[in-house]
Amino acid sequence: MREKLREILEKVKTGEVSIEKAIDELRILPYEDLGYAKVDHLRGVIKGFPEVIFSQGKTTDQVINIMLNLLKINKRVIATRASFELYEKLKEYIPDAIYFDKARIIAVLREDIKKKGKVVVACAGTADLPVAEEAAITAEIMGSNVERIYDVGVAGLHRLIDQLDKFYSSNVVIVVAGMEGALPSVVGGLIAKPIIAVPTSVGYGANFNGLSALLSMLNSCVPGIAVVNIDNGFSAGYLANMINLMVEENRK
Amino acid sequence: MREKLREILEKVKTGEVSIEKAIDELRILPYEDLGYAKVDHLRGVIKGFPEVIFSQGKTTDQVINIMLNLLKINKRVIATRASFELYEKLKEYIPDAIYFDKARIIAVLREDIKKKGKVVVACAGTADLPVAEEAAITAEIMGSNVERIYDVGVAGLHRLIDQLDKFYSSNVVIVVAGMEGALPSVVGGLIAKPIIAVPTSVGYGANFNGLSALLSMLNSCVPGIAVVNIDNGFSAGYLANMINLMVEENRK
Amino acid sequence: MREKLREILEKVKTGEVSIEKAIDELRILPYEDLGYAKVDHLRGVIKGFPEVIFSQGKTTDQVINIMLNLLKINKRVIATRASFELYEKLKEYIPDAIYFDKARIIAVLREDIKKKGKVVVACAGTADLPVAEEAAITAEIMGSNVERIYDVGVAGLHRLIDQLDKFYSSNVVIVVAGMEGALPSVVGGLIAKPIIAVPTSVGYGANFNGLSALLSMLNSCVPGIAVVNIDNGFSAGYLANMINLMVEENRK
Amino acid sequence: MREKLREILEKVKTGEVSIEKAIDELRILPYEDLGYAKVDHLRGVIKGFPEVIFSQGKTTDQVINIMLNLLKINKRVIATRASFELYEKLKEYIPDAIYFDKARIIAVLREDIKKKGKVVVACAGTADLPVAEEAAITAEIMGSNVERIYDVGVAGLHRLIDQLDKFYSSNVVIVVAGMEGALPSVVGGLIAKPIIAVPTSVGYGANFNGLSALLSMLNSCVPGIAVVNIDNGFSAGYLANMINLMVEENRK
Amino acid sequence: MREKLREILEKVKTGEVSIEKAIDELRILPYEDLGYAKVDHLRGVIKGFPEVIFSQGKTTDQVINIMLNLLKINKRVIATRASFELYEKLKEYIPDAIYFDKARIIAVLREDIKKKGKVVVACAGTADLPVAEEAAITAEIMGSNVERIYDVGVAGLHRLIDQLDKFYSSNVVIVVAGMEGALPSVVGGLIAKPIIAVPTSVGYGANFNGLSALLSMLNSCVPGIAVVNIDNGFSAGYLANMINLMVEENRK
Amino acid sequence: MREKLREILEKVKTGEVSIEKAIDELRILPYEDLGYAKVDHLRGVIKGFPEVIFSQGKTTDQVINIMLNLLKINKRVIATRASFELYEKLKEYIPDAIYFDKARIIAVLREDIKKKGKVVVACAGTADLPVAEEAAITAEIMGSNVERIYDVGVAGLHRLIDQLDKFYSSNVVIVVAGMEGALPSVVGGLIAKPIIAVPTSVGYGANFNGLSALLSMLNSCVPGIAVVNIDNGFSAGYLANMINLMVEENRK
Amino acid sequence: MREKLREILEKVKTGEVSIEKAIDELRILPYEDLGYAKVDHLRGVIKGFPEVIFSQGKTTDQVINIMLNLLKINKRVIATRASFELYEKLKEYIPDAIYFDKARIIAVLREDIKKKGKVVVACAGTADLPVAEEAAITAEIMGSNVERIYDVGVAGLHRLIDQLDKFYSSNVVIVVAGMEGALPSVVGGLIAKPIIAVPTSVGYGANFNGLSALLSMLNSCVPGIAVVNIDNGFSAGYLANMINLMVEENRK
Amino acid sequence: MREKLREILEKVKTGEVSIEKAIDELRILPYEDLGYAKVDHLRGVIKGFPEVIFSQGKTTDQVINIMLNLLKINKRVIATRASFELYEKLKEYIPDAIYFDKARIIAVLREDIKKKGKVVVACAGTADLPVAEEAAITAEIMGSNVERIYDVGVAGLHRLIDQLDKFYSSNVVIVVAGMEGALPSVVGGLIAKPIIAVPTSVGYGANFNGLSALLSMLNSCVPGIAVVNIDNGFSAGYLANMINLMVEENRK
Repeated sequence: MREKLREILEKVKTGEVSIEKAIDELRILPYEDLGYAKVDHLRGVIKGFPEVIFSQGKTTDQVINIMLNLLKINKRVIATRASFELYEKLKEYIPDAIYFDKARIIAVLREDIKKKGKVVVACAGTADLPVAEEAAITAEIMGSNVERIYDVGVAGLHRLIDQLDKFYSSNVVIVVAGMEGALPSVVGGLIAKPIIAVPTSVGYGANFNGLSALLSMLNSCVPGIAVVNIDNGFSAGYLANMINLMVEENRK
Repeated sequence: MREKLREILEKVKTGEVSIEKAIDELRILPYEDLGYAKVDHLRGVIKGFPEVIFSQGKTTDQVINIMLNLLKINKRVIATRASFELYEKLKEYIPDAIYFDKARIIAVLREDIKKKGKVVVACAGTADLPVAEEAAITAEIMGSNVERIYDVGVAGLHRLIDQLDKFYSSNVVIVVAGMEGALPSVVGGLIAKPIIAVPTSVGYGANFNGLSALLSMLNSCVPGIAVVNIDNGFSAGYLANMINLMVEENRK
Repeated sequence: MREKLREILEKVKTGEVSIEKAIDELRILPYEDLGYAKVDHLRGVIKGFPEVIFSQGKTTDQVINIMLNLLKINKRVIATRASFELYEKLKEYIPDAIYFDKARIIAVLREDIKKKGKVVVACAGTADLPVAEEAAITAEIMGSNVERIYDVGVAGLHRLIDQLDKFYSSNVVIVVAGMEGALPSVVGGLIAKPIIAVPTSVGYGANFNGLSALLSMLNSCVPGIAVVNIDNGFSAGYLANMINLMVEENRK
Repeated sequence: MREKLREILEKVKTGEVSIEKAIDELRILPYEDLGYAKVDHLRGVIKGFPEVIFSQGKTTDQVINIMLNLLKINKRVIATRASFELYEKLKEYIPDAIYFDKARIIAVLREDIKKKGKVVVACAGTADLPVAEEAAITAEIMGSNVERIYDVGVAGLHRLIDQLDKFYSSNVVIVVAGMEGALPSVVGGLIAKPIIAVPTSVGYGANFNGLSALLSMLNSCVPGIAVVNIDNGFSAGYLANMINLMVEENRK
Repeated sequence: MREKLREILEKVKTGEVSIEKAIDELRILPYEDLGYAKVDHLRGVIKGFPEVIFSQGKTTDQVINIMLNLLKINKRVIATRASFELYEKLKEYIPDAIYFDKARIIAVLREDIKKKGKVVVACAGTADLPVAEEAAITAEIMGSNVERIYDVGVAGLHRLIDQLDKFYSSNVVIVVAGMEGALPSVVGGLIAKPIIAVPTSVGYGANFNGLSALLSMLNSCVPGIAVVNIDNGFSAGYLANMINLMVEENRK
Repeated sequence: MREKLREILEKVKTGEVSIEKAIDELRILPYEDLGYAKVDHLRGVIKGFPEVIFSQGKTTDQVINIMLNLLKINKRVIATRASFELYEKLKEYIPDAIYFDKARIIAVLREDIKKKGKVVVACAGTADLPVAEEAAITAEIMGSNVERIYDVGVAGLHRLIDQLDKFYSSNVVIVVAGMEGALPSVVGGLIAKPIIAVPTSVGYGANFNGLSALLSMLNSCVPGIAVVNIDNGFSAGYLANMINLMVEENRK
Repeated sequence: MREKLREILEKVKTGEVSIEKAIDELRILPYEDLGYAKVDHLRGVIKGFPEVIFSQGKTTDQVINIMLNLLKINKRVIATRASFELYEKLKEYIPDAIYFDKARIIAVLREDIKKKGKVVVACAGTADLPVAEEAAITAEIMGSNVERIYDVGVAGLHRLIDQLDKFYSSNVVIVVAGMEGALPSVVGGLIAKPIIAVPTSVGYGANFNGLSALLSMLNSCVPGIAVVNIDNGFSAGYLANMINLMVEENRK
Repeated sequence: MREKLREILEKVKTGEVSIEKAIDELRILPYEDLGYAKVDHLRGVIKGFPEVIFSQGKTTDQVINIMLNLLKINKRVIATRASFELYEKLKEYIPDAIYFDKARIIAVLREDIKKKGKVVVACAGTADLPVAEEAAITAEIMGSNVERIYDVGVAGLHRLIDQLDKFYSSNVVIVVAGMEGALPSVVGGLIAKPIIAVPTSVGYGANFNGLSALLSMLNSCVPGIAVVNIDNGFSAGYLANMINLMVEENRK
């Protein structure tokens, strides 16, 4: 930062830059610096990263207005946790919006996504599908190729083992599981990839809305597994994509 | 019970039995009946069942006295959750007592145990061993052959799969696991036997003294798994032996 | 497995089997082996075991399609946690489906069930009935005779004691209880049979959706009691039936 | 109240009432009123009630000093949760102090206790004894006859049933239980007396230091059971004695 | 019981009673004995005690049928947790049923209730009223005079202190409180009566459906306070009435 | 106190003090003293403090009646947690009532509020707005100037830092946050003002209805942060206003 | 900040300040600005504020070194949660250190403290004393007069009421309470001052290390009560002092 | 795998390989395949990965024996959660073992580690150091350059902001925090790197052994943060190193 400062000051001294303009530049430096860093990294690492609206807890009007605003300067915008009702209203204002119903995501994609690398999203039961799809669609829109492995569960290990090759060719693995949440440990014992575990609130009785799966995943005897919040497919997809793109960026 | 009553009353009527004696017989009937049923079943199903002392929370003197009393009418007595210190003192009074140190069980065995059938006790980590051994020794002393499978864990599935034959030839399977408690679900997906899952308090961080493993096991996606209390190897061994002997009794 | 491998290889060497065919056989060995074992046991021990669909969290279409698929190769299929609405729609496609309303189970039974042995299902209050019936119907359809003892509760011990004979003549006992969950302990003190305890979410105030009954059952002072998840009548019925059939299979 | 005050003051002014008498009337008006009422009730209902020191969390010196102070104006003083070490030191200053070791209570009793009525204290296991004795000794020193029924547990109902007569002849019943905490419900189903349930922290695994027993007791399906805090034998004994004495006071 | 047995046996011996009849008498003895004891106590202590139906979790038909049955042999029957809709339907079958709307209790009272003694029911907020009324109406219908003190709360102590006389003239006090649940401790510091504390689920934020008030009451620094389950006004009213009647019975 | 009473009475007797004056002195002695003190402080410190109705859990009629009553002697009355439906009905009876929809507060303001000092209300997300507005409107109506800082969050620190001046010129700061509840710690590291933290139930997954934010705030590494109940904007606004007015009162 | 920037830049332009020096000034601006603000406020509002070391979890050497460092530029330094052993070792290096044993605070005070205003610290039991003293000593050393009211508890309201005058003359009140944590609500009903409630881990049974008191305080029905973490007397003293000094600063 | 199988079979057919040898190769295939994959990935991605012993819960002898065994075929072996006492005994057998005392790690390093890329390990307080060091040493021994940033905390943001450059030049960031666990959210708002959050059990009062920090981190409003178990520095270091090496491997 010292260099940046020197440069501005020297221009002030020489009169190349007016004091008022220098004030403006300097004033935003500390934050813009932060922002810059972020942008820099975003540009270098995650370029084309879309803006995200968390729809839950917002009114239909709020979501539509925020999206219209974001679209002024962004080519990709997504809204997560979006109902079909929300989508239908939003489409009146933004006709090119598309809806991923399993993932409950509304997306406006006004540029091509050049997907790279590979993220695996695995889950066992049909009830975990919405969370798994939220993760998968998020990673895809953000720039990752995603391979879905949805027909696996600890109660039928052979199906999981049959698909190990798919895991081996990925950069990151997202494992979504409810109930006893054992799948990440089992997958983690079979492959040596970063695993992002997503507990789901799927289950009955003493699962306490996903707490059972969450605790299982945190207590995994397999190292290299990190956990996001219950049902938070978006955060898992975001993180997996970030790691995947970092690996692929450096590949060149 | 009606027959039993009729029999006594007829003997009273004929004078074969005195009223006082009949009173004694009748008075204990309702409870003796209960007891009888139990004894009957014990005799028919679990014969040779030893008496059990839960040592934890009892003084050394209390354990020794209870054991001396029980030995007056029992040929097999065991004390669970017993320390080696307790054993050393007890041995002064009961020289033929033996100590299973991993299982923390003191046993006095004054008759041969004819073991039948097979119970598998499986666990993953060395830290689960005390609980697994408590289950195994309990089942053995009560009359079951026990096969220990202690080198398996969900982080190394191939070792588990290598030993499936041992599971297939058993009548009941006890699975002991701490941390994420995933082993019962994985075993349950591979075999079709009654599984008794024992969560252990082994683990760190958010395992909450075994709660994590307990919830995992209760929420297993595999049916046919029942759970006993955290670290309660004795109850698992007791129940597994009961089922194993029932099956074997009927085999003849 | 060594023998199996040797056999195949010798046939390859002698040309009895083509390499391509041997590859096919070998490739599925590890999993088919697992599956085989399962099938073997299912065939030997639990023959006629029906396929099960867990309806909760699935759409009506999903349940109907899965059931239609399963019926292509299965003669008995059941769907648990099924509403009457689901049943009415499903019946349009599968007219011979029947509905057990208390148990909330849809069943298609295209072969006779030869029931064996006996499972007792006991519960205290009318509010526990749906869970108890789920356990009972499950065990019946899977091949067990079931005796229901629904008029017992710890607040009226004499009714329980009156029915002890029914418990004595069973192979396994399922005890369903909500609120303080004391019934399994009381029953366990009176009989010497494997007891599967099912806590229910029935209750008010500090019962925390069944946690109170669950903890009671796990902490029972009576050994030989194993617990399934809150309200999980299906798993209890499944396990009880498995034990019951094992005992009866061996009886011959 | 203004009128009440005016009335008294006018009588003072006219001399109709002496200043001393007015003081007495006025003084008890606000807090003395409270105190008076309390004293009145104590005098009428619980006369001879001793002073109580809760030793836990206090230093030896603090307990001795408080007790010496209380003994200046009280003939009965007790200290609960007192260790034997504390007792030995205290005895140097108060030689007539006695120690109830099971109850962990130090008592100085300088007047005869005329016990009335009957309180039953029931518990199942030896591990619950300290809490049961704290309840029993408290009630005895405060003026109740206490009958201990310590050989009962839900795993052996006949022993409980054998002793029902003792329950029938009491005014109040204290039931102390750890683990699954089922005893109060079972007792409550057999007798129609006020039951004070005391959960104990006795147990293992998922008993959570008495939470299991506490929840059981709160969720009892039997009405007429009230619960005190975990291990709080003193409060149970205090309340039982209060009810017992109320009944007996009125008997005359 | 010995005498009872002797009597029957002697009649058998003399032929005064047939063996078959003696069997019938003996067979029901153990339970009838229990029942007898209960009836005896009910008759002696709580005579006129009504039958109670817990409506919650029962269908309208079930409640009506149970009540019609109970009315065949009872003059007083109540149903708790009853909605007004339930009452309106029930009234078609039982026209003399009355409804206490605040208490959500349906009652059929076909005999006069001679109320005795006094139970105080105190609560602070209007939101606690349904629980307080459930306790009050229960105690009244079971035979106690009830004084309601509903305008008190720890935030306005003077109103509580103003009404202390009402507390002093009662035999038992029920204190109903939600939120921080402090009222029982404060009342317990002012009066020397048995206090039954009822936590309510009233509150917001971190009250966890009454857990906050429940823990407060269990941890009261004032001895002599016992607690029933959250919102369980019925159990509190039942117990308070039982104590109140015991005191009054003995008064004569 | 006896001396105090004697002194007054003797002065009454001698006529040194009039009966009316003595009444005044005596009357405030016990509870009036309390009330008086409160009024005194209210008058001195928080003058113009409005009456508050907590609408949640009350019927529309109850709220309207209470408000009509309060308005007889109060010039400012507010009802919190009030729906728009409630407001519309209430307006028929109290036409000058106004509604703050974000804060869900109904207010009747029949005197000018002279606002003093400054309270800052900060929050991050739009979902926290209702709680923040409840705090803000409460403080405003009670007499504080309020500055809202709603565009800040720990994920975008520069926006927070940009607004530090606003914090520096306040007397008290209310920080409202859901999810991880980190904002109060961050603000507390930047400013040296009393901070009242309000956790909100906003969030998903393992936030447990605000428990996550509540625990964060209680465990803040920054001293000088005090916490109110989850979602309790009213209490935060009330306390902040009280501190703010105390500072401002003394300013003169 | 714009002015500050302009000033520096103009000096750069005129050569009054060298570029290197300007860089140093500018670089440090954004954070120094924050720091400045803090210092400014500290200077303006809480002048003489001491530095604080949290001893728990630090080695003796670490505490001594940190304190020696802080004393180079501070005249008042305190270490909280300090054992007497720590104090004795520290005294060898810092002979003028003093120890407040009840509060477990080591202090070095090399300037006079001019105490202002008044903070009341109230608690009920002797077991709460360490936490209360930590709060009191903290507030005193930071510059507040503190009045301790330690002989009050909800079980003896008259003692509390007797001391209300002391509360009325304070600016802030700290209420420390364990067990049921009711004291803040009761105090809050009697006075109109900001109340900082400190739950303590004092208690037994179901108090869960202070959770019971914490929930009580958070759920208080009295507004104007804010809560700090369990046993965190320091934070309460810090906040109370901050409010007290703000009020007093403005008094002049 | 098909190719692998064909190859072996063809060699069998041609006699190039004996049947016995083929059996050995085939038998091991399914698991070795898994293992191979792991090794392959380990070789390709994480080459030189050391073996790890979790010392906690193991005896000194067990750790020494396991380490001696591992050293037969490994050049790098580490033991985590190792005490200094353990190290001293182990050193007698393995003299080249070294001890990282802050990290509590014993390491035997018999080959050079060529570190690549950069992992940042950040934490705030000295109490978090052991966990942070466990993460840092783990990542270093496994092959990552690690930059420690230990002087940052949310209470002093400027120190954090001062060091942002260090974060920007890393591939992964580990953030270790106890108490309110806010640091990962704040860091996540400033940088766009994968963040692995490690909650620590450091804290007091209502932190519940790290639950407070764990919940904060799971509920972070910043996406891209994944969480490992409380105090599990090893797992965080393992995962961070895995991601870091993947990025660096691909860089070439």
